[in-house]
Amino acid sequence: MPKVTFLPDNKKIVVPIGTELLVAARFAEIQFDAPCGGKGTCGKCHMRVVKGQVDSKAVISPGLAKDHYVVSCKSFVKENDLTVEIPKQFDPSSGKFAVDSEAIKLVDPELMPREWQYNPLVYKNYIEVFPPKSDDGLSDFDRLTRCIQLEFGKIDVSCTLSVLKKLPGVIRKENGKVTILLVRESGKFHITDIETGDKSDSFYGVAIDVGTTTVAVELVLMPEARILSSRTDYNSQVTCGLDVISRINYARTPERLKELRTRVVETINNLIVKVAGKYLIDRNDICNASIAGNTAMVHLLLGLDPENIRLEPYTPVAYQIPYLTAKETGIDINPHSWISIAPSVGSYVGGDITSGLLCTSLSTDSEEINLFIDIGTNGEMVIGNNDFLMCCACSAGPAFEGGGIEFGMRAATGAIEKVEVDKTSGKATFQTIGNVKPKGICGSGMISLIANLFLTDWIGANGKLDRSGKSPAIVTEGRNAYYILATADESYMSKPIIIKELDIENIIRAKAAIYSAFSLMVKNLSIEFDDISTIYIAGGFGRFLDIEMAIVLGLLPDVPREKFKYIGNSSLTGAYMVLVSQDYRQKQKELAGKMTYLDIGSIPGYMDEYTGAMFLPHTNATLFPTVKKNQ
Amino acid sequence: MPKVTFLPDNKKIVVPIGTELLVAARFAEIQFDAPCGGKGTCGKCHMRVVKGQVDSKAVISPGLAKDHYVVSCKSFVKENDLTVEIPKQFDPSSGKFAVDSEAIKLVDPELMPREWQYNPLVYKNYIEVFPPKSDDGLSDFDRLTRCIQLEFGKIDVSCTLSVLKKLPGVIRKENGKVTILLVRESGKFHITDIETGDKSDSFYGVAIDVGTTTVAVELVLMPEARILSSRTDYNSQVTCGLDVISRINYARTPERLKELRTRVVETINNLIVKVAGKYLIDRNDICNASIAGNTAMVHLLLGLDPENIRLEPYTPVAYQIPYLTAKETGIDINPHSWISIAPSVGSYVGGDITSGLLCTSLSTDSEEINLFIDIGTNGEMVIGNNDFLMCCACSAGPAFEGGGIEFGMRAATGAIEKVEVDKTSGKATFQTIGNVKPKGICGSGMISLIANLFLTDWIGANGKLDRSGKSPAIVTEGRNAYYILATADESYMSKPIIIKELDIENIIRAKAAIYSAFSLMVKNLSIEFDDISTIYIAGGFGRFLDIEMAIVLGLLPDVPREKFKYIGNSSLTGAYMVLVSQDYRQKQKELAGKMTYLDIGSIPGYMDEYTGAMFLPHTNATLFPTVKKNQ
Repeated sequence: MPKVTFLPDNKKIVVPIGTELLVAARFAEIQFDAPCGGKGTCGKCHMRVVKGQVDSKAVISPGLAKDHYVVSCKSFVKENDLTVEIPKQFDPSSGKFAVDSEAIKLVDPELMPREWQYNPLVYKNYIEVFPPKSDDGLSDFDRLTRCIQLEFGKIDVSCTLSVLKKLPGVIRKENGKVTILLVRESGKFHITDIETGDKSDSFYGVAIDVGTTTVAVELVLMPEARILSSRTDYNSQVTCGLDVISRINYARTPERLKELRTRVVETINNLIVKVAGKYLIDRNDICNASIAGNTAMVHLLLGLDPENIRLEPYTPVAYQIPYLTAKETGIDINPHSWISIAPSVGSYVGGDITSGLLCTSLSTDSEEINLFIDIGTNGEMVIGNNDFLMCCACSAGPAFEGGGIEFGMRAATGAIEKVEVDKTSGKATFQTIGNVKPKGICGSGMISLIANLFLTDWIGANGKLDRSGKSPAIVTEGRNAYYILATADESYMSKPIIIKELDIENIIRAKAAIYSAFSLMVKNLSIEFDDISTIYIAGGFGRFLDIEMAIVLGLLPDVPREKFKYIGNSSLTGAYMVLVSQDYRQKQKELAGKMTYLDIGSIPGYMDEYTGAMFLPHTNATLFPTVKKNQ
Repeated sequence: MPKVTFLPDNKKIVVPIGTELLVAARFAEIQFDAPCGGKGTCGKCHMRVVKGQVDSKAVISPGLAKDHYVVSCKSFVKENDLTVEIPKQFDPSSGKFAVDSEAIKLVDPELMPREWQYNPLVYKNYIEVFPPKSDDGLSDFDRLTRCIQLEFGKIDVSCTLSVLKKLPGVIRKENGKVTILLVRESGKFHITDIETGDKSDSFYGVAIDVGTTTVAVELVLMPEARILSSRTDYNSQVTCGLDVISRINYARTPERLKELRTRVVETINNLIVKVAGKYLIDRNDICNASIAGNTAMVHLLLGLDPENIRLEPYTPVAYQIPYLTAKETGIDINPHSWISIAPSVGSYVGGDITSGLLCTSLSTDSEEINLFIDIGTNGEMVIGNNDFLMCCACSAGPAFEGGGIEFGMRAATGAIEKVEVDKTSGKATFQTIGNVKPKGICGSGMISLIANLFLTDWIGANGKLDRSGKSPAIVTEGRNAYYILATADESYMSKPIIIKELDIENIIRAKAAIYSAFSLMVKNLSIEFDDISTIYIAGGFGRFLDIEMAIVLGLLPDVPREKFKYIGNSSLTGAYMVLVSQDYRQKQKELAGKMTYLDIGSIPGYMDEYTGAMFLPHTNATLFPTVKKNQ
């Protein structure tokens, strides 16, 4: 079989003839982003063949072809050995999320309701069990039960086989002093673990947000409901596709579904090692977990086939997942812990939303109409009050996260995140994450750039660049034009960073999807944007969003700025709330049950709304009265 | 390391110096009975060293020593290689139980209550699930739940993770036609398995009786509650000790506890292969199991430490075992099946008794006082009516199963099971199981022999043999005497089968233990034997018990013979009843809760009772008015 050597790491692997280059790289354990999941649709997974030949089945631009670049998911190993260079990609561990992981905003006390009851799914209780007596005829389990009932009243007590196996040894070691792990559910007590002595203080939990791009873990000292440490990292599934649909496509065989499961479980476990390691906490003392994630992420985490989420009529396996043990999920905490997973509402409105809602007044009995939006690859939004809740989802696409943009990248070191455009020259000044030479541009940078180009009149409302030749930053080539954001001298890779009209169009498509969803929801309810009291904005993206520029772009509606409220990673905050109180799980279920799903695409007039929103800020300028061009 | 070769099978094994010969034999996978569990107390696990030398630490009779016999559990491998002959033991597979396994009495319809409701723990239901629709927003699990609720009403439905994993594939394969495995408990439905199509007829269950000596399995066609096949075999734990206490001693390390668990699970699984194989049934279609066994057997089956059952104050880990999955127990049926285990009452009154009681009027609202006794290595008995139930246990010891009797053996081929004694000569004529030359004598043979020797005046009420020299069958040696039951010519091993006075004493001790328990129970209740309406006799032993001779011996009370009722293996029958109707599990729990445990040993006058019963039939002859010596 031919051997493939991957540069620059010099990793070697022997693979059968016909193997995709992308697959070979994965076998060689090379982290490499294939934005569309290896379906061959994005044509972005370039590798450079330094030596040997491949059977390439994808068309590639003549410039790249000349330099021996190929589309790796469409290039197949032939009988000869190969040397292949992997282009420099951005190391996820150096990304902004990773750098900032310790600085993540802890749960904002403002987001927690004023009054709440500590009521976790799992308790850790210290019990002193009286010794066996010859005349009472009680078994070890009977004695334990009696002592629990003495403390908590006449309640039904059950346990697992593993508890029974440990029981006689544990109960005798320190004269009946034991600590039990107790699931309290439906008025019954279920003991899932037991150990000798009083360990009730060594009781931790984790709140986990499984995002398509980022996974976040918070370590909580349960008895005090206190967050000790937080960490975020990229979901290592990103190398199998950048968005939900790509992941579902990738998961088309049981082996690949398993791979995706393993990847996200490993991401979570690595984060747990970090948060627990910081406090030298034994992972067996982490006995409580609450997870929130979108519907597809929950499917992939549990190894449930996500295929039908993608296919009409978009049917997930389940919205509500039963309590599972840590052992069943593979999450490396006490294996006897029970895990609570946030319920979903629809194929594209997931547990991240039912969790996020907990941080908003939409989960309270407020009569005011509020709106909650989680902006990411999928835009998910909920509008309503104590009377009704309507939700919808729209596919914004990966543009806000750098996908489909030639120099697009995620918000990591080297990404241009803020741009100013000179009214006179049309030239840009920019700010990069990490203050280094720019490598590309992230979503917030694109919003900033396009809004500024629009305000300074260098692009029109249709997103087309000025072709007058007045700006040295705008280059026209036949029917097309592009914008030079950074020159070769300025850029990290010593070649200019350019923005094509196609890139601008992709961002406009994304914002149009979100805005038209907003608009349709509001129209569908026969209200106005002004009737909305508060617009909660959540998501990893939301942390870097410039509200003013987002309104100029026409992404967010033009309403008084004080109506907008950032709530950061509300999915994680909601998971924390459920972790410390199962009352919130009940609340989530109520919210999920109350929500009406609006299928945006099926509403008459959908295309009109969308088309109207395909301009800057909108074809109907009266919708954006405060947006004025720079004079 | 030295090599040990075991004859006659020529099995070879290399073991470290210092290994017990018995352990080496076990590693070489040789089935060999160590009656006391290898504790070195019975001195019966003889092996013959043909070549090489061992380090023997047990005293052995000079005759055996001359022939190079050693006590294998007290003999240790030295640096030299060894050749060791394993004496012929009785192959369990040729035993009477095994020979008769197919002929085991199926559940006696008489033992089943007149009216009972089919209500197994697990149901297998065929469901037609409607297809996913674009406007209903239902997940696969929601659709399944709705269809179940359409059939069964608005009931709570949950499922396992493995069901969710299978669900999308299974539900789409034949347009929503699925068969589910449904646990109905506490008014909730829990789905544990799912498959495509209508498989509701392929639904089987097993009732299992785990005895100390014998394991019995019954295969049941669930929808008809019909028993298809039954099989019994020796519990392969017998090689680790013949009685409960020896087993508990053997289980003193985790490895040995695991070995015992593996042995009994394998015994059960082999029986399941046999019962299922006969009907070509896929073991995945066996989805229901009900198990009954004594407290120690249940502990060993589940890997629970039994140590404290043996130690004062005799505290088992648990009396009531939660429902377990087949996967947890290792029983090789559908791994998602739930298994119901009969509750115990005390360390020595187990689930075999709560099961057995179901077959008697003690579990009904009869006002008559009845008595139930399960005679085995442990005698367990229950007395009572609709008002009260009192139970007790006594250690009869292994004498009735051949233990502690020089030529004692279990009821297997070659065992003398019935004896007649000539009044004039004192010589015996006998009947052996399988009509072959005798190898030894089993419990029913001992009862028959001793009762006949007593009736013909060749032994006294104290169990001592006639020393007058009138019978050629009685040989006096100094202070001791023994009885020649079979001559060397008559016996299988060409050496005489003799019964020593010590052997007779052991049987008398055993019957005294049982009779005094009877007697104390009755006295404790201030009633007479005559007040008892029916005496139910159960147990493997009970099948071969000659009631008349048992009364002569003073084992059973002297009451009208029609009061005795054989009920065979009532533990298995009870397990079957629970299998087909969980109403009986509820009944078992009620019975267990109602039973008062009487600790025979702690009652004043216990020793007097026991001493009185140490005669034939009793010191107080008025208790046995119908017992007359042969004239």
